[in-house]
Amino acid sequence: MRYQLYYWPTIQGRGEFVRLALEQAGAEYIDVARMSGKDRGVSALMHGLAAGGTTPFAPPYLKAGRLVIGQTANILLYLGDHHALAPKDETGRLWTHQLQLTIADFVAEVHDTHHPLAASLYYEDQKPAAKRYSKTFLAERVPKYLGYFERILKRNPRGKRFLAGARLSYVDLSMFQVMAGLDYAFPNAMAKRRRSYPLLRELSARVAALPRIAAYLGSKRRIPFNNDGIFRRYPALDTRK
Amino acid sequence: MRYQLYYWPTIQGRGEFVRLALEQAGAEYIDVARMSGKDRGVSALMHGLAAGGTTPFAPPYLKAGRLVIGQTANILLYLGDHHALAPKDETGRLWTHQLQLTIADFVAEVHDTHHPLAASLYYEDQKPAAKRYSKTFLAERVPKYLGYFERILKRNPRGKRFLAGARLSYVDLSMFQVMAGLDYAFPNAMAKRRRSYPLLRELSARVAALPRIAAYLGSKRRIPFNNDGIFRRYPALDTRK
Repeated sequence: MRYQLYYWPTIQGRGEFVRLALEQAGAEYIDVARMSGKDRGVSALMHGLAAGGTTPFAPPYLKAGRLVIGQTANILLYLGDHHALAPKDETGRLWTHQLQLTIADFVAEVHDTHHPLAASLYYEDQKPAAKRYSKTFLAERVPKYLGYFERILKRNPRGKRFLAGARLSYVDLSMFQVMAGLDYAFPNAMAKRRRSYPLLRELSARVAALPRIAAYLGSKRRIPFNNDGIFRRYPALDTRK
Repeated sequence: MRYQLYYWPTIQGRGEFVRLALEQAGAEYIDVARMSGKDRGVSALMHGLAAGGTTPFAPPYLKAGRLVIGQTANILLYLGDHHALAPKDETGRLWTHQLQLTIADFVAEVHDTHHPLAASLYYEDQKPAAKRYSKTFLAERVPKYLGYFERILKRNPRGKRFLAGARLSYVDLSMFQVMAGLDYAFPNAMAKRRRSYPLLRELSARVAALPRIAAYLGSKRRIPFNNDGIFRRYPALDTRK
């Protein structure tokens, strides 16, 4: 089966968490909105949001045969089951998903660093609020979230190599993406904490070195970070050097 | 098995979505932080967040035997499976969960109406930003989310009585809570749209009339809405009458 991923074509965004899982799974997929032709492109993405039945609220969504799956963490729950990217037992599945949902909460806060007042306003029109939000985000929220995930790694009874269980799961891929995104968006703040999260740093390096992920990151399929996505580099929001 | 729910004792908050599912399931449970004594109260809740193993990031979390489940939507995924509060097939399970995750996104935006800049600041210290946020929230986000869920009901191939499939699921209970919360927090804005979402209104009334839910809502177990929870009544944030 060839999956069809529907997501905005010019940003990593939330779609990137799905792309990383598809790549690591070695799954056959097309990134529909990045292609041109019939039933391709952004118009196909928009069409899927207007269809009947199990219409998703927003991208990303994944078509798997007749199944249409929306919500990033939900897509990963599905891919984890079908591609051995999560533990198989109920306890392990729920735990992996729980960690993914906490990453989703964190990512929503990252988005709000540049859009605290309204997603429909430009960043430039909410800059003072963005600066205020980012200040607390970097001082309180980043240490809270990263400190939590560092502890989860440290205390994993199956070893410190992965977040959930003894093997790689989709949440490890997502954690890599979060660390890469934070490094891009807040280089000064993250440089100051370079040694604060040794296990998360090791995990990120381990994920980046996975043969399939390394190949993906070096390919044109990986859209570079840019200031239209979730992780944006606005020096005004970062701490000073 | 007797479940142990851990959540803040004086608010409905995110815990209420779990309480409603436990009540409708007729499950035996205790609301740990609302009780006093050994291993009870807020200290027991805090203790659970500091423990090793599968420690949740934040309340609510549910203990089910040796299992500790965090993240509201994840708890509902579990309860849906174990108490016939969701379809059993993969397609139906994922669809129900997808809708719940979209409700979770909506609820996070409701929270941000009074806390747009930082969860750690008082509302009173971010009031202008809260007013700005709420204006767009009521004008754009509420119609977008409620319009979406109204369409989902209308197009449900199994009938317009429930959001997912032909039977009640946890997402119907959560939808009731969202409608009740919005009516509490934004009485003027919601009164103006009283007739805009007829199927959601019917669904809410149907849920409120379920014998177990009606009994719960009339009991002391149901904490009243108040201005410490997610849905808060601040007239400054509502539209004018």
